[in-house]
Amino acid sequence: MSKVAPISGFPEFSPAERLVEQRFLDVIRETFELHGFGSIETRSIEPISRLTSQGEDADKEIYAISRLAGGGRDDSRWGLHFDLTVPFARYVLENAGTLDFPFRRYQIQKAWRGERPQEGRYREFTQADIDVVDVGTLAPHFEAEMPLVIADVFARFPVGDFVIQVNNRRLANGFYTGLGIADVAGTLRIVDKLDKIGPDAVADLLVESGATRAQAQACLDLAAIRSFDLRFIDEVRALGVTNPELDAGIEALAAVIETAAAHAPGRVAAALKVARGLDYYTGTVYETQLVGHEDWGAVCSGGRYDALASDGRTTYPGVGISIGVTRILGLLLGQGLLRASRSTPAAVLVAVSAEEDRAASTAIATALRGNGIPCEVAPRADRFGKQIRYADRRGIPFVWFPGPEGGEVKDIRSGEQVPADPSVWRPPAADLHPTITRA
Amino acid sequence: MSKVAPISGFPEFSPAERLVEQRFLDVIRETFELHGFGSIETRSIEPISRLTSQGEDADKEIYAISRLAGGGRDDSRWGLHFDLTVPFARYVLENAGTLDFPFRRYQIQKAWRGERPQEGRYREFTQADIDVVDVGTLAPHFEAEMPLVIADVFARFPVGDFVIQVNNRRLANGFYTGLGIADVAGTLRIVDKLDKIGPDAVADLLVESGATRAQAQACLDLAAIRSFDLRFIDEVRALGVTNPELDAGIEALAAVIETAAAHAPGRVAAALKVARGLDYYTGTVYETQLVGHEDWGAVCSGGRYDALASDGRTTYPGVGISIGVTRILGLLLGQGLLRASRSTPAAVLVAVSAEEDRAASTAIATALRGNGIPCEVAPRADRFGKQIRYADRRGIPFVWFPGPEGGEVKDIRSGEQVPADPSVWRPPAADLHPTITRA
Repeated sequence: MSKVAPISGFPEFSPAERLVEQRFLDVIRETFELHGFGSIETRSIEPISRLTSQGEDADKEIYAISRLAGGGRDDSRWGLHFDLTVPFARYVLENAGTLDFPFRRYQIQKAWRGERPQEGRYREFTQADIDVVDVGTLAPHFEAEMPLVIADVFARFPVGDFVIQVNNRRLANGFYTGLGIADVAGTLRIVDKLDKIGPDAVADLLVESGATRAQAQACLDLAAIRSFDLRFIDEVRALGVTNPELDAGIEALAAVIETAAAHAPGRVAAALKVARGLDYYTGTVYETQLVGHEDWGAVCSGGRYDALASDGRTTYPGVGISIGVTRILGLLLGQGLLRASRSTPAAVLVAVSAEEDRAASTAIATALRGNGIPCEVAPRADRFGKQIRYADRRGIPFVWFPGPEGGEVKDIRSGEQVPADPSVWRPPAADLHPTITRA
Repeated sequence: MSKVAPISGFPEFSPAERLVEQRFLDVIRETFELHGFGSIETRSIEPISRLTSQGEDADKEIYAISRLAGGGRDDSRWGLHFDLTVPFARYVLENAGTLDFPFRRYQIQKAWRGERPQEGRYREFTQADIDVVDVGTLAPHFEAEMPLVIADVFARFPVGDFVIQVNNRRLANGFYTGLGIADVAGTLRIVDKLDKIGPDAVADLLVESGATRAQAQACLDLAAIRSFDLRFIDEVRALGVTNPELDAGIEALAAVIETAAAHAPGRVAAALKVARGLDYYTGTVYETQLVGHEDWGAVCSGGRYDALASDGRTTYPGVGISIGVTRILGLLLGQGLLRASRSTPAAVLVAVSAEEDRAASTAIATALRGNGIPCEVAPRADRFGKQIRYADRRGIPFVWFPGPEGGEVKDIRSGEQVPADPSVWRPPAADLHPTITRA
């Protein structure tokens, strides 16, 4: 039997940390549903040929699965999905005949990547994605909608201050083309490294790849532009590059920034350095940073894609954004920045006077549960002091002592103890469920 | 690129079916938390040596994972977990120093088995487990608690009528020993096949394995006993076998049945045929059947285990029960027995008068969302008849038409349309979220 030990990159939370994660997932789900997104889940595996057909170096990161006892040919052709976008595109193609378009879905699932683990990077992690896909064409207002949903999520959970940075691939592509750069995709991939390697190294790489020093500097000047309003337009124009694709990109980005300024002011910035490495993005791209933790990189990103889901005849363009749930929580919990008020859902411990009277305590618990109050019956008929300590250790705020007319309930924080009827008593709303606070 | 196609045994639900699953999972979670169970999740993989050390023929069913690009030695030693009990036992051992005992946890996760798929059997499936583990000894009242929680779950979700069947390993073991049968474990495994192969075949197998015809008949007589109250005791006694282990088993089973009769009458039966194949059970065992669908087999099962989690010095005995979520839903949805009232969470579609007025519709949607009402803004400023059909196709009950003072809201089922203020309007409670009904 193997040693009992953690596996690097496969995180497991403590019960109290898991309560924080559950609350985050609840907020995400509730917000997605308020915005009219419905849930789907896709199988955890896809054919390896599908997984490797998307994204840069994706095949290096894939976990293949096979039956331990050997088995069908099929088994050896599957791998665990590394994101939720590729499976979603496949799901859309597979079910196009029965889905209603535009199709709005959210998907909260685990994904796996076999990369080397490091702080905030995991081999098994939970993503929470929203996407809208349509048939043939996708209206641009969906590109403006994505950041509003994400701003709503992050405003309702104490992740701290955040900025959703937005750019548009057409803007960057048009600018590079207008500059006279031939390898537009290669340039984008180099600029994407800006936060990691700095402007000097990016300029060197651009020159190595064939750009002049002046072109490289113009790329860096573009990447330095950032505004929460439409000021970015004048700043781009001031760089003196003209190109019809650039104009289209500016117009599209302006529409996203204008909508955001109206509905989520201060949360969404045009940030022209945002590139996103993945090849399949064709329009708006998103990258979200936690303010004060910019070194953590993007915690929520996505973009518009036009050809990811296509069966050869019909194309299903889409736009989506993905919250790195495990990444955000791993970092915030790792630094002790989020805390649950208790380690169990129970708001009440129903004490047991004697083992032969356990049924009376169970009846009280049943009454409380009937009113939606999570509770637990004490595991042992110890003396009451010990039962109170059992509750205290878990952060359970109330202990109920059974008595002939219901008994009495004690707030073990204040020590206040009052007679109470289990069929009508309620804890203060703030105590009903564990609360999550930011340190 | 591979063909877009389902993979046998890896089910995917439609958006409307997923709404049914979400409601079932919500009821499960809420009920588990009302009973004071806290959530944990374990990583999806375990060392293969741990997976193969538990359970009958488990190694045949394990999916091993490996990095597609090749990689560390480690990667080839891992497999996807095939249940949640083995990972939970490992989690308890790994975190024994920081967990509070008795530790009450629930766990709702996917598991994987590489077996041949058939109706209601999947290779990827969701399980929902509760377990209580303690240090050294586990109080018997926890064995009586498990069926109460499950009865609560199934009473709150329209699975139809159900019976949680309970037996006790010690009762069966004591009876077989008292009969003079040597291979008690082998006998148990044969009797476990009763529902599948019938009494005659079981009797033949028992005789083949060394029992006399009379002993085999006595085993079948025991297996035929079933009662919702304590009548099973007299029926066992009438078979004339005496043994101290049998007495202990009868007493333990009687305690479970008595508690159930008081708190969940009619839901829990002593059923002495219940064996459970897994070797690690040592006391109470559970198997739940849906009435009228007994041929579907057990949809929720578990039992007490005393040695599953042990580090050699300390043992952590536990008792648990597991709901086969995908199994239950696969069968009920497959037969069209459960239905969601709509295919999206949205209760309201906010119509768009003209594309340039989209911001007004978004503002109405924001107001509705602020009051917890899921809604969607119409994707296109089509004529209103077309927008109403868009809502109708998805089962969205209300369409909001923006106007100077908020506008008007139409119940598209009745046709009733009234002026309304989006900051205060609420739909009837029954329309706020999709409802799940049994056909």
